[in-house]
Amino acid sequence: MPKISTRGDTVPASPIRKLVPYADAAKKDGVKVYHLNIGQPDLPTPQKALDALKHIDRTTLEYSPSDGYLALREKLVGYYGRFGIKITPDDVLVTTGGSEALLMTFMACMDPGDEIIMVEPGYANYLSFAAQAGLNVLTVTSSIEDDFALPDVEAFEEVITPRTKAILLCNPNNPTGYLYTKEELYRIREIVLKHDLYLFSDEVYREFCYSDEPYISAMDLKGIEQNVIVVDSMSKRYSECGIRIGNIVTRNKDVRESVMKFAQARLSPPLLGQIVAEASIEGTEEYAKQCYEEYLARRNFIIAGLNAIPGVYTPMPQGAFYTTASLPVDDAEDFCQWLLTDFRYRNETVMLAPAAGFYNTPGLGKNQVRVAYVLKIEDLAKALVILEKALEAYNRR
Amino acid sequence: MPKISTRGDTVPASPIRKLVPYADAAKKDGVKVYHLNIGQPDLPTPQKALDALKHIDRTTLEYSPSDGYLALREKLVGYYGRFGIKITPDDVLVTTGGSEALLMTFMACMDPGDEIIMVEPGYANYLSFAAQAGLNVLTVTSSIEDDFALPDVEAFEEVITPRTKAILLCNPNNPTGYLYTKEELYRIREIVLKHDLYLFSDEVYREFCYSDEPYISAMDLKGIEQNVIVVDSMSKRYSECGIRIGNIVTRNKDVRESVMKFAQARLSPPLLGQIVAEASIEGTEEYAKQCYEEYLARRNFIIAGLNAIPGVYTPMPQGAFYTTASLPVDDAEDFCQWLLTDFRYRNETVMLAPAAGFYNTPGLGKNQVRVAYVLKIEDLAKALVILEKALEAYNRR
Repeated sequence: MPKISTRGDTVPASPIRKLVPYADAAKKDGVKVYHLNIGQPDLPTPQKALDALKHIDRTTLEYSPSDGYLALREKLVGYYGRFGIKITPDDVLVTTGGSEALLMTFMACMDPGDEIIMVEPGYANYLSFAAQAGLNVLTVTSSIEDDFALPDVEAFEEVITPRTKAILLCNPNNPTGYLYTKEELYRIREIVLKHDLYLFSDEVYREFCYSDEPYISAMDLKGIEQNVIVVDSMSKRYSECGIRIGNIVTRNKDVRESVMKFAQARLSPPLLGQIVAEASIEGTEEYAKQCYEEYLARRNFIIAGLNAIPGVYTPMPQGAFYTTASLPVDDAEDFCQWLLTDFRYRNETVMLAPAAGFYNTPGLGKNQVRVAYVLKIEDLAKALVILEKALEAYNRR
Repeated sequence: MPKISTRGDTVPASPIRKLVPYADAAKKDGVKVYHLNIGQPDLPTPQKALDALKHIDRTTLEYSPSDGYLALREKLVGYYGRFGIKITPDDVLVTTGGSEALLMTFMACMDPGDEIIMVEPGYANYLSFAAQAGLNVLTVTSSIEDDFALPDVEAFEEVITPRTKAILLCNPNNPTGYLYTKEELYRIREIVLKHDLYLFSDEVYREFCYSDEPYISAMDLKGIEQNVIVVDSMSKRYSECGIRIGNIVTRNKDVRESVMKFAQARLSPPLLGQIVAEASIEGTEEYAKQCYEEYLARRNFIIAGLNAIPGVYTPMPQGAFYTTASLPVDDAEDFCQWLLTDFRYRNETVMLAPAAGFYNTPGLGKNQVRVAYVLKIEDLAKALVILEKALEAYNRR
C-alpha cells in the first residue's frame, strides 16, 4: 500500500476537532449544547437572496467565467465604492469562498520555501493554506495583556529574512475581534514598503466594526497599491457561508494574471452561489443594519457577562463576532472537554474553542478560549450562567 | 513591487486561451461561431434537479459538512451500486468539482518532488494541479496511429523511478474519447501492484460509453483496492458543470483521513450544488438514457462526417463526447486561428481546440485538433461543411 504524503502532517487539525465527538456524545444523551465554538452565523440569509434561487430560469447550469460573472464583479465594485474604495471589475476575481482566495493568491504570489508573516493568535486554516502552498510561516505574537494590539515593528523586523515575501493580517480579527487602528495599519504599510512585501488582508468581517472610527481597508493605504491583496467573502456578511463565494481584490495586474492561471485550471466558481451573492449586495442595506445592531447588542452583552465571571478576562473587541478570553484554569482544552463530558447544569452545557489551537507557538494561549457570539441574547445569557457554574465546579474538583 | 511566483510559469495555459480573443472579435463582427472546442454540454440539466432549487426552504444557507452531506454520499453509494461497485458512504468525499478532487488527492497522497505518470494527449489541467502540488509529471504517449490505445507496459517501465508514486488515467478519455479495454486495465493493475503505486482514475465520462462491453471502473480491479482513488463529477453526467460538485471515492482510510485535513481547511463544498446533485442521482434514468442516445447519435454522425473530409482521420471513440482528429495541415494551431480570423462560409465559422495543448511532449499533435460534440446534429452538420470548405481554402492559399 503506497504511503500518504507527509504534507498532510503539516496541516493543523481544527482547534475543536478533538472535542466534536464529545459534543456529539453529549447530544446523544439528550444534553443541550450551546455552541459558542463556531463561526457559523445563526442569522438568516437576506430574503432577497433566497428569492433569487426561486427565480432561476436557466435550463442548463453551465460553467461561469473563471474570474466570475462580470455582473457580480460590477456589483462588488459598487459595494467597495460605498467604503470609498475605488476599483474596477478587472481588480476583482470571484473565488470559491475566502478559502480558495487565500490558497490561489498564496500560490500565485509565492514559491515553495518563501516566508509569510502571520500574527498569532490567528485563524487556524491560514496554516493549512500555507502548508499547501509550501510556505514557511513566521509568527509575531499579540497578547491578551495588550488586548491583542498589533505587535511592535521590532517584532516584525526580528523575523524578516530575505525569503520573506508577505504579511497576512485579518482585520477585524478572528479569533480576537481586534480591529487594527489607523496607526497600526500605517506601521504595517511602512514595513511592507521597506521590505517590498505583499500585504494579504483578510477583511471578511468588514461589516462588523463597532468603533466610531471609519473602517480602514488595506486598499486605503497609499503607496502600497501594488502590494495589497484583499481576501473577502460573502459568508459572514450575508450569513450565506454555504454558497462558497468569496473574492480577491488587487490592483496588481501581474498578480491577477498569475491568479487567473490557477482559476482557469479549476474552471469556475460556483454558479448558483454567484446568483445568490449578486442578489445580496444591493437592496439589503436594512438587512445589514439589523445584523449589525444584533451583533453589537450581543457583543456588549457577552463581554460584560464574561468579565463579570470571577477570574475571566476579555478585552472589548471592536469587530467581527468573536472574542478571546482568559479563564481561571490552567488548561482550557481540558476544561472545554470536561464541559462536554462531565458538566451539566439543568441538563445543558457549553462548547467553546480552546484558544491554543489559534497560536503557532506551543504553550501559548493555554488558559484562553475563543467565544463566538452567534447565538441570540437569551441563549448567550444561559450559556454565561452555565460557564460561571462550570468554572466554580471545575476549580472545586 | 514584489515578484509573483515562478510556480505560475509551470501552469500551462488552456489550449484555446490564445484563440478566445479571435473568437470574440469574430462574434463582434456578427459572425456565427460553432463551438466544437469546449467541454461544456449543451444538453439541459434534469428538470428534477432544477426544481429542487425552487423548493429550498432554508432560511440560512449554512456550511455543510467538510466531506459533504451524508444524504448525498448515500445517494452516490446507490449510484455506484448500479455499476456493481460496492462502497460505503465513508468511502465517498464530496468536493468542489472534479478539479478540487484532483488537487486534494494529489496533496494528500504525494509530496513535492514525487512523480506521477500521465498519458498524453491528456486533459491539460492535470498539469496545473500537479504543478500546484509540486509534483513532477512523467509522460507516456498514446498515438493516433494506434487509435490512442494504452501504451505498452514497457513505456511505463521506462519512466518509473523510485520517486514515482502514481499513475493517472482518464477513462473514458478526454481529449480522445478512448475507452480502455479490460486487458489494458489489467495491465495497469499489474504495474500498480508491482511498483506499489496509487492509481488515480478520472471517470467523469462513465455514463457515456458506446461499446457493448460493460464499463470497467478502477474500483473493479481486484487486489489494488487500497491503491485506487476515483475522481468523479456531476458536471458532465447531468449537464450541471456550474454547480461545482464532484467527489472522491477511495477505500483507503489513510488517504481519506489525509484528504479530510485539506477538506476541513476549505470548510465545505457548495451547499446549493449538493442539493441539485442529490436531486439528480435518482429518478433521472430516463433523462440519462436520452442524453446517452443523443451523444451516441452525434458521435456516429460526426465521426463519419470527419472521416469523409479528404485528409482528415479520426478513430471511432468509444466514450465521452470528444474525439481527436488529424487534419491535412502542418500546424493545426495556425489553422484554428485562421478559421476565426480569416475564414467565413456564409458568415459562419468553426472553433476547434488545437491538440498540441493536450500533449506534454513539444512537437506532438501539431496536426491534430480536439472536437467536442456538444452541439445538436443539425449544427454539427453545418460545422462539418464549414470545416471541409475551410481546409480546401486553407491549403489553396
